[in-house]
Amino acid sequence: MSNSNITAAMLVIGDEILSGRTKDRNIGHLADVMTTIGVDLREVRIVCDEESEIVEAVNTLRGRYNYVFTSGGIGPTHDDITAESVSAAFGVACTYHPEAYALLEDQYAKMDLEFTTARKRMARTPEGASLIANPVSKAPGFRMGNVFVMAGVPKIMQAMLDNVVPTLDTGKKLISMTIPCSHGEGTIGEALGEIQLQNPQTMIGSYPRFENGNMSTDIVVRSREQSAIDTAADAINNLLAQLDQKRQSGIQR
Amino acid sequence: MSNSNITAAMLVIGDEILSGRTKDRNIGHLADVMTTIGVDLREVRIVCDEESEIVEAVNTLRGRYNYVFTSGGIGPTHDDITAESVSAAFGVACTYHPEAYALLEDQYAKMDLEFTTARKRMARTPEGASLIANPVSKAPGFRMGNVFVMAGVPKIMQAMLDNVVPTLDTGKKLISMTIPCSHGEGTIGEALGEIQLQNPQTMIGSYPRFENGNMSTDIVVRSREQSAIDTAADAINNLLAQLDQKRQSGIQR
Repeated sequence: MSNSNITAAMLVIGDEILSGRTKDRNIGHLADVMTTIGVDLREVRIVCDEESEIVEAVNTLRGRYNYVFTSGGIGPTHDDITAESVSAAFGVACTYHPEAYALLEDQYAKMDLEFTTARKRMARTPEGASLIANPVSKAPGFRMGNVFVMAGVPKIMQAMLDNVVPTLDTGKKLISMTIPCSHGEGTIGEALGEIQLQNPQTMIGSYPRFENGNMSTDIVVRSREQSAIDTAADAINNLLAQLDQKRQSGIQR
Repeated sequence: MSNSNITAAMLVIGDEILSGRTKDRNIGHLADVMTTIGVDLREVRIVCDEESEIVEAVNTLRGRYNYVFTSGGIGPTHDDITAESVSAAFGVACTYHPEAYALLEDQYAKMDLEFTTARKRMARTPEGASLIANPVSKAPGFRMGNVFVMAGVPKIMQAMLDNVVPTLDTGKKLISMTIPCSHGEGTIGEALGEIQLQNPQTMIGSYPRFENGNMSTDIVVRSREQSAIDTAADAINNLLAQLDQKRQSGIQR
């Protein structure tokens, strides 16, 4: 716990996202959760339902970041190939996980539904994987090494992620301060760049807004150290005070 | 025109997406547009505001696909580094584009705003790039080779994309047919996999719905050939008719 720089990547798997048929809602949720717990989400990839694409992305990302979170492709149909693809990425067999098999067998018996070969697909994991509980619709996700495989349906993905978060090694939380600014980015950009250079412990971002025909900017200062944020914020507030003064004296608007 | 398989990738650039602060709305839009015009969006990556990350992604994707579309990082501030990163990816200088410079100089003069160094950043492109007009806020995007660099603000990105689309070589449009199915994926999955195997010219996807406590499925058949879709749809409709019959006779629900 509390290592300062735990990193993560997300891999979204699914033709339906790339075709536009389904609009992804999992990336933004994972990003919010990672920021909240102090893990740096560093990269996201969306790939189609092709084993070679999934294998390449999983292997690249799991080598590069502490954690990889995938969403999508763990249902019962032929285009749900995440379990076998992650198995291939790890070079292990994809087999029925006894606990997942028993859980689903029981679940379908209770529902008086046949435990079809298609439904049994949802019990497959790479050999050696541990399960991620799915309180919504039972069929579990799984963890293999540093890769967490979750469903694509947002409420199931979110429930699985809730079960994953307590198991994660998390970093020192990134603190963020937003400073509203009534000037456009073009007015503040140069001076803000200087302030960034002088405050290397912070990440300073600026996000333009166009509202009611007016340009304004949200300046966001992020750091793991409150003192670093405070120093940068002082410099930014000084800059804004100077600009306001200039504006009032009519030199610049 | 009408080559059968024009491919594309998207690269979203921005810390604010990865931190969750901003929720991306450009991926879904680009996906919709590409599907409409018959270009296969094959991969999406989201990377942070770091030159090495952007360079690696641009070079990988532009080598692999016909087109690469980027969004984000072309504003006036220090964290807007897309122009220099794309220049580095192509191994050319990042310089003021005369046409962009003149356009912005004129624009700020009209607005009675100083043409600051920060604002001048928005006139920079890789040497040899051509501009993409921005009817919303003037500062242009650009095309360099097969890479189209656009803004991150959705309405500007969309306006730029509208200007890009007529210049693209497009493929034979993917036709899609959705067949609603009152059975869950677990019931139809196995047979649907068989139908996929027998209809290799189609891509058959299934998308579960949970509504009012009932599971149902949308089956989507996609192909570039209407006849291939019709053949697969016939097989699927036969399957569904059989399942309905079984259900009515009480063998399976």
